[in-house]
Amino acid sequence: MSSTPLLDRIQSPDDLRRLPESDLRQVANELRADLIDAVSRTGGHLGAGLGVVELTVALHHVFDTPRDRLIWDVGHQAYPHKILTGRRDAMRTVRQENGLSGFAKRTESEYDPFGAGHSSTSISAGLGMAVASDLAGHRRNVVAVIGDGAISAGMAYEAMNNAGAMNARLVVILNDNDMSIAPPTGAMSAYLARLVSGKAYKGLRDRAKAVARHLPPFLQEGARRTEELARGLLTGGTLFEELGFHYVGPIDGHDLDHLLPVLQNVRDTIDGPVLVHVVTKKGKGYPPAEASADKYHGVAKFDVVTGAQSKPKANAPSYTRIFAETLLQEAREDERIVAIHAAMPDGTGLDLFGQAFPKRTFDVGIAEQHAVTFAAGLATEGYKPFVAIYSTFLQRAYDQIVHDVAIQHLPVRFAIDRAGFVGADGPTHAGSFDTGFLVPLPGMVVMAAADEAELRHMVRTAAIYDDGPISFRYPRGNGTGVELPERGQALEIGRGRIVREGTKVAILSFGARLADAIGASEDLEGFGLSTTVADARFAKPLDEDLVRRLAQNHEVLILLEEGASGGFAAQVLELLARRGWLDRGLKVRPITMPDRFVDHAAPETMLRASGIDKAGIVETVFRALGDGARRVMQA
Amino acid sequence: MSSTPLLDRIQSPDDLRRLPESDLRQVANELRADLIDAVSRTGGHLGAGLGVVELTVALHHVFDTPRDRLIWDVGHQAYPHKILTGRRDAMRTVRQENGLSGFAKRTESEYDPFGAGHSSTSISAGLGMAVASDLAGHRRNVVAVIGDGAISAGMAYEAMNNAGAMNARLVVILNDNDMSIAPPTGAMSAYLARLVSGKAYKGLRDRAKAVARHLPPFLQEGARRTEELARGLLTGGTLFEELGFHYVGPIDGHDLDHLLPVLQNVRDTIDGPVLVHVVTKKGKGYPPAEASADKYHGVAKFDVVTGAQSKPKANAPSYTRIFAETLLQEAREDERIVAIHAAMPDGTGLDLFGQAFPKRTFDVGIAEQHAVTFAAGLATEGYKPFVAIYSTFLQRAYDQIVHDVAIQHLPVRFAIDRAGFVGADGPTHAGSFDTGFLVPLPGMVVMAAADEAELRHMVRTAAIYDDGPISFRYPRGNGTGVELPERGQALEIGRGRIVREGTKVAILSFGARLADAIGASEDLEGFGLSTTVADARFAKPLDEDLVRRLAQNHEVLILLEEGASGGFAAQVLELLARRGWLDRGLKVRPITMPDRFVDHAAPETMLRASGIDKAGIVETVFRALGDGARRVMQA
Repeated sequence: MSSTPLLDRIQSPDDLRRLPESDLRQVANELRADLIDAVSRTGGHLGAGLGVVELTVALHHVFDTPRDRLIWDVGHQAYPHKILTGRRDAMRTVRQENGLSGFAKRTESEYDPFGAGHSSTSISAGLGMAVASDLAGHRRNVVAVIGDGAISAGMAYEAMNNAGAMNARLVVILNDNDMSIAPPTGAMSAYLARLVSGKAYKGLRDRAKAVARHLPPFLQEGARRTEELARGLLTGGTLFEELGFHYVGPIDGHDLDHLLPVLQNVRDTIDGPVLVHVVTKKGKGYPPAEASADKYHGVAKFDVVTGAQSKPKANAPSYTRIFAETLLQEAREDERIVAIHAAMPDGTGLDLFGQAFPKRTFDVGIAEQHAVTFAAGLATEGYKPFVAIYSTFLQRAYDQIVHDVAIQHLPVRFAIDRAGFVGADGPTHAGSFDTGFLVPLPGMVVMAAADEAELRHMVRTAAIYDDGPISFRYPRGNGTGVELPERGQALEIGRGRIVREGTKVAILSFGARLADAIGASEDLEGFGLSTTVADARFAKPLDEDLVRRLAQNHEVLILLEEGASGGFAAQVLELLARRGWLDRGLKVRPITMPDRFVDHAAPETMLRASGIDKAGIVETVFRALGDGARRVMQA
Repeated sequence: MSSTPLLDRIQSPDDLRRLPESDLRQVANELRADLIDAVSRTGGHLGAGLGVVELTVALHHVFDTPRDRLIWDVGHQAYPHKILTGRRDAMRTVRQENGLSGFAKRTESEYDPFGAGHSSTSISAGLGMAVASDLAGHRRNVVAVIGDGAISAGMAYEAMNNAGAMNARLVVILNDNDMSIAPPTGAMSAYLARLVSGKAYKGLRDRAKAVARHLPPFLQEGARRTEELARGLLTGGTLFEELGFHYVGPIDGHDLDHLLPVLQNVRDTIDGPVLVHVVTKKGKGYPPAEASADKYHGVAKFDVVTGAQSKPKANAPSYTRIFAETLLQEAREDERIVAIHAAMPDGTGLDLFGQAFPKRTFDVGIAEQHAVTFAAGLATEGYKPFVAIYSTFLQRAYDQIVHDVAIQHLPVRFAIDRAGFVGADGPTHAGSFDTGFLVPLPGMVVMAAADEAELRHMVRTAAIYDDGPISFRYPRGNGTGVELPERGQALEIGRGRIVREGTKVAILSFGARLADAIGASEDLEGFGLSTTVADARFAKPLDEDLVRRLAQNHEVLILLEEGASGGFAAQVLELLARRGWLDRGLKVRPITMPDRFVDHAAPETMLRASGIDKAGIVETVFRALGDGARRVMQA
């Protein structure tokens, strides 16, 4: 017999809604077991999903999804939701090529009305849906689930500020697990903790239980509801009330006897924005997850019984680690170096920095806009701030980079991790646009590391250079295994390097695809095509002398980058055009990310499909040389 | 005798600090008169400055500027500050070429520790400075002044959330004038209004005055101070207290007898973040400003006695007006069209829309991030949202454009006003980067209007096109005076147009510099150079056929845009390179904004200095053709 008899009968939330409330506890237990089993086979996000098992069951039982809109912020806690909404079997393919996304995704299911990947968007999107529902005269419910970490982001506040003044029928579920990825920081999280620890919460919870226990069952329900509602009105949440929300909570997010009546009440009585404060535990119900520091936020495949993860052994240190270690080296010698990140101590490697220099490390929460301008403020006072933010999240701070850093020419250092394809996290997390949005900025220095040794040099360069803003990008994952210098050497600003000299073909690479360029050059030499390989190091300022020599002394010039159009290759092309170096003809070919969002897959697969690898370079060269050359190759 | 005897003696805040408090009322009066006189001669921002005259005097009297850091958010209320900090005479040049900036600017004065132009940055920057002061062991005060409109932006909340948890010694002055540019919207502004209208505020103010009046003068001072402090503790501000700030206020920002003791108290007792809630009146003390709807936010030169502004007569309607009128036309026929702006009803022209369709118009406050994702939510439900945001402010929403709109391919319409140089507002407001940051996004349609008739067509196009995101940019100021069609015609997506046929030179223009291209072509024809002029209309998708024909049939190809590098010209160059259309040589030359931030001046001056005008085009063509052609020209 199946160990998940109830879950086996749920093909969609309609099936769930047909079950009596008394069955839901068992559904939740089966759902939790199924989630653990699924993620143990694939790896993925586990802790967040475990924390919302009961909440997911309760939401789909109470609300009429998909007609009612249910939006999961970030989406990495949506695995239980996926299992309940027809994607149970497909969960065994999550985050794998052609498999389910690890986040909510509109094209995947009608039960995902809004996709995500970045945090803190759900209230804005939900407000748009609620307003649309009002305009159209439907009376549908819109529920946006958001974590306590995500609510520290500015856009969540902007959305609440707007919703609170609009009287839209929007339900915000604040999933307070006190742990988004890192332990949350900031005044809002302290405030939430006070709400949860308040006497009113504990006292009323106990009293409600005591009262309910002495009533006949059919009255217990009513009494419980009354108490729940009263509790919402009594126990505070002033901050949210001042922002125009009706506040309900805090309630125990693992107790269906609390969740169901509160959500039913909200559904039946809502006439304006409501915030339901639900307290959950990340990793709930799986001891290895509950015990781990990050609650199994993102895991590799693991053994369900022991919890041991099977992470592949690395042959080279990760770029993230080299960044962090090198910054530490520099910071030991220069006390003006400070480090800033946005709720990403582990991901950026700055946990190391924080241990060594707690007073010089600033976790500002999920608040990239503030992070950059805060760094600008530090820079005005002579400090050397390193802002470590993933490429994709740096998009949140674009105006601050332009307006607060670049226009004022302040020496803020941008350490841009996860630049390029990121694999299983897919398009929402790809680091595609950073070079393109940084190079147009006057006075900005824009670097990319070809390997981990180069990254070490670039961290050193950024530590020394103090004349204006400077950035360096580096990819997710492990380095190439090159020999690492003990210490970084400051690079000359705007100077690239020739890696290999040839005469017919030149490949000018920006960033970590240099190894592919070298590999391609070896293949090309094998076909008798003498090939130069150069590492640009800088997209801005460009090494004009290097570009000129490559353009004038070769028949073909390949411009290579793991980034979207409009970045490095575009800069080189503009230079070539301005200087007239294209006037007499040059077979110049950009190789960039394709003009589409690339779905999640192994990074190598994504690179191959995009032509940003050895084979793609060789193919591009032969296409540039024309059919004659292609015949040579095939001979 | 001078009408400003006290002000005449103030060369710097040191002089102000040497005056007794009893003189400060007169200083404020003189400062106000001087400000009105100065702005009447130059035009500029007036209402905001009038509202903070007393606050400016009080801050410089109480705090030790420039050692203490005083940051004016946005900076358009910093005119009185400029007058007191050695820039009184120079104020007669404000916003004019080579004159003072209309905003705070680091390179202009040591009294401007942080420049601005965009709102809501001051708390982040101030926190950086406060932290730096702590790290360095200085004990300096950092004061950030921010308006009630600006505090609705997410980054202000992010900064407060961070500051409130850090215990930094930061003073935030909330300048609550209930009117940033437009009347504020949002729950925060409603909350502030409740604080100000609260019984506690009025009751205690009256009681304090009554008590103080019956005491001997030397005791009055102490009594007043005690009351002020008590008032701060008593009257609420819970929301700010919950965010970790000590809240003081609200206090009357035009009453120096209130301002001075409160600020002194704050200065002498501060041991963590403090928010001082100051209530002011925009336009205070100048009846024409107080009476006007926008409180004389930004004015032309005006007559001091009558208040009449001398605005130059326009020969053609403004682009903004054409956008707004056309959108109204479309919205009358399609009820799914809705309009969203971020606290800019007048600037975007959507005040018209709001009057006609109040339920379909959404002013979300200064909250560009939320504006875009809110629009995305509306789009998921079948609505057709037009988001009208200036190019420079759209930078605030970049991640939302990428992550919430483009990745999900939602049909959100972006109306990008103030694209290109904006004249007197200078580099913080220039619309430089929009094309560059939008064209790399897969599936985004990117248009620019060559004139006001084209803008009408593009609004129509965006109203009809419903397959994905679409944008259109248009400049500040008046159209070219072309004949306007009654209604717009939907353009074919990705199709440009030939304006004039020639054989030797081609100019491919994107956007409103088309008239310069046509003018240049006439000059070139005069030199015997047969010239084609084309209007690209689309930077994405590019009209490949048009680009190919221009490239293959001409010796010179000019790519023209009023935007930074990395935009339209870069896209065309990438296309030319990918297709091999450069292989046999093409004198292709991009003309874009220069690689520097261009200081404020008349727009024509900025364009001329950047070579983005008729003369610049002609010059570029001749340089491309080489010295031989140049001699022809001079012959």
